[in-house]
Amino acid sequence: MSNKPVVFITNDDGYFAKGIKTLVNLVSQYAKVFVVAPDQSRSGYSCAFTSKAPLRMTKLSEQDDLVVYSTNGTPTDCAKLAFFDLFAKEKPDLVLSGINHGSNASVNAIYSGTVGGAIEGCVNHVPSIAFSLCDLEKDADFSYCLPIVDRLVRYVLKSHLPQGTFLNVNFPKGELRGWKVCRQADAYWSEEFDRKVGSDGSEEFFLTGRFINREPDSVDTDLWALDHGYASVVPVKINSADESLMDKLNNELIEEI
Amino acid sequence: MSNKPVVFITNDDGYFAKGIKTLVNLVSQYAKVFVVAPDQSRSGYSCAFTSKAPLRMTKLSEQDDLVVYSTNGTPTDCAKLAFFDLFAKEKPDLVLSGINHGSNASVNAIYSGTVGGAIEGCVNHVPSIAFSLCDLEKDADFSYCLPIVDRLVRYVLKSHLPQGTFLNVNFPKGELRGWKVCRQADAYWSEEFDRKVGSDGSEEFFLTGRFINREPDSVDTDLWALDHGYASVVPVKINSADESLMDKLNNELIEEI
Repeated sequence: MSNKPVVFITNDDGYFAKGIKTLVNLVSQYAKVFVVAPDQSRSGYSCAFTSKAPLRMTKLSEQDDLVVYSTNGTPTDCAKLAFFDLFAKEKPDLVLSGINHGSNASVNAIYSGTVGGAIEGCVNHVPSIAFSLCDLEKDADFSYCLPIVDRLVRYVLKSHLPQGTFLNVNFPKGELRGWKVCRQADAYWSEEFDRKVGSDGSEEFFLTGRFINREPDSVDTDLWALDHGYASVVPVKINSADESLMDKLNNELIEEI
Repeated sequence: MSNKPVVFITNDDGYFAKGIKTLVNLVSQYAKVFVVAPDQSRSGYSCAFTSKAPLRMTKLSEQDDLVVYSTNGTPTDCAKLAFFDLFAKEKPDLVLSGINHGSNASVNAIYSGTVGGAIEGCVNHVPSIAFSLCDLEKDADFSYCLPIVDRLVRYVLKSHLPQGTFLNVNFPKGELRGWKVCRQADAYWSEEFDRKVGSDGSEEFFLTGRFINREPDSVDTDLWALDHGYASVVPVKINSADESLMDKLNNELIEEI
């Protein structure tokens, strides 16, 4: 048996994307790595799973400490299949998702398949990190992010994370002055669709949109960090009841209802 | 202009499901209701959106205070289209999603398209509630839930909710002793797939699974409430940084990295 840590890696851009290959190349230097990733882009799939069609896992390659599978599913499906099939006897030490091509900061995390992969690790009580670079290009340069990726991976392998919390890490495009531990900014997408007329004359809507940061001056947010050249490191709780509202509802609902 | 409140309703079971029709019948008695719901079941779609295909909205019916549309998208798409097209000038007073056929308590909330619909309302800073009944049957009996649905809807219309928090409400099957304000239980799905051999001889995985409550004795959880005949009312924060871990990371990462 090897003493190397076991790391499971998925993403939402597909097993062939430069971002996941970059992450695998780095981590497989000191860990036994299992990759299970989609066979096509699954961006924007959030924590969606596949229930109406059969899933298939295809082994693409196997070397000493690196095994790569693809599936016809979402990132959540990939993680579920990995826990069911590869890690049935022993869970991995760490789940990584990414490195995503494009931002998963702020509200983007809600829709992100990359973040979905990390959430599934977190549900299984394995320390999990989602990595994303704010650059959608297929040939994006991930190299300058790797020292911080490496240090975060080694830190979490050593120190773990609280159950129910994962790290959502985003890197700015083109420069990196360091990192900041922060919270997600309050933001949303505005003017989200282009209207066009389809071939049959009916109106069609194509997703687009303008990203609005509702709190651009808040220095403790991920968007502020990224705008100022820092990687954002957000510890996200996957299951968070609003405790102050619980108290309020307990008082007011009894009277109101 | 009517003084009635404006309520947007979506779901993930489709516009034709008994659960959404039951909710619409109730709320349209005192509100102007706009329904935008999927044209097919979109259960398990979480907050997934459609980016690679055009979306279409079809008006199915229009009466005095009730307009119903279907779309070829997910619940998140339905909500995004409604905010873009129907509510471009003025937001609705309330977003409702459901009533879902099947539980969205505990970890199920992560995967739920019904909850996804409520989250999109919450992202848009409109008070939002997801309703679900722990009964998957198409012809499930929702009638005994309606007094509590009605009171929660009227309460939130009057008192609103904090920005960034929605209510995830689940009803037990068959009996209702009242409701409890609670947090989500820590649970997961185990043994998630059936293995079968496909027509081409390859192995296929079909989603199934056994639901495991990691804390069956915790009386403050949604699963405890549901198991004991109460509706569970969970105020969920959509954007929750783990503050204790932020402090720890700020201290330890500086030393470690």
